[in-house]
Amino acid sequence: MNIVRHNPHGRLLCDAVEYNGLVFLGGQVPRDLSQDIKGQTADVLQQIDALLAKAGSHKSKIISANVWLADMRHREAMNEVWSNWVDANNLPCRATVEAKLADPRMLVEIACIAAK
Amino acid sequence: MNIVRHNPHGRLLCDAVEYNGLVFLGGQVPRDLSQDIKGQTADVLQQIDALLAKAGSHKSKIISANVWLADMRHREAMNEVWSNWVDANNLPCRATVEAKLADPRMLVEIACIAAK
Amino acid sequence: MNIVRHNPHGRLLCDAVEYNGLVFLGGQVPRDLSQDIKGQTADVLQQIDALLAKAGSHKSKIISANVWLADMRHREAMNEVWSNWVDANNLPCRATVEAKLADPRMLVEIACIAAK
Repeated sequence: MNIVRHNPHGRLLCDAVEYNGLVFLGGQVPRDLSQDIKGQTADVLQQIDALLAKAGSHKSKIISANVWLADMRHREAMNEVWSNWVDANNLPCRATVEAKLADPRMLVEIACIAAK
Repeated sequence: MNIVRHNPHGRLLCDAVEYNGLVFLGGQVPRDLSQDIKGQTADVLQQIDALLAKAGSHKSKIISANVWLADMRHREAMNEVWSNWVDANNLPCRATVEAKLADPRMLVEIACIAAK
Repeated sequence: MNIVRHNPHGRLLCDAVEYNGLVFLGGQVPRDLSQDIKGQTADVLQQIDALLAKAGSHKSKIISANVWLADMRHREAMNEVWSNWVDANNLPCRATVEAKLADPRMLVEIACIAAK
């Protein structure tokens, strides 16, 4: 079984790894840190869509997700964007906790595991 | 290979997902937030038992767990309840870190991956 | 399919679990807490090397990693040690967030999933 790796960043990490019918996505973070929580969440989910497509998967095949919020008070607004994005007939399981992220302006980070 | 999803909550997430011999449980949280860390941990583990049963698995088949504690000083008390619950002959690997959770009264959240 | 568990600790958890071509490592923490972030990161990565070897895997087969830093300001120093350790041709995906760990002197914890 092959391990397929997508989008290497320097000598540090890559964005997505395929192995044995599973696709693992590392913690995706917003590109535009000037946006509010809704904009940053949409930005992250857009990147997840692109990575899943690249790895031959799709949001309807997400199994499990981890959401880290810089401020738990943003949960409702994040959930609103998430709910409109996620496949209502194929809901993943999820854990959502608060954590300080790499940049103080960064409000949300999402990692997930999907089926191919 | 089919993806089987259990207990959808609104348009948001589900509690457990089966895929390819693995069972993924999202972050389970206590139902009764008036309890102390021991009561909340027992509550969460009871829910994990029920979800694993529903997905055709069992605590003796847990592979990996993530424990988030709202206050790391509760680690010993959580571990006491965990130790009495976990299958001593089939210990999972685990990561335990502190994180603020969805409700200020919520003291513990646990996610895990099990074999079927 | 067998579940193989390595290094049980009391009635609590084990260090690594093999199942169906995957190796799961729990959150590995430094042994020598007197060291700075670079020393602690090197210590954790050394333990990961040993566990992966025991489970018939290798750092070149890591799929996904979770890094928790007690202080996000240590990210650059942790990344320096990580970059020199990780297999540059086989980069895993990763999520890195801040979290208080089990001991106030503990600066880094790393969990990962690898292929066999």
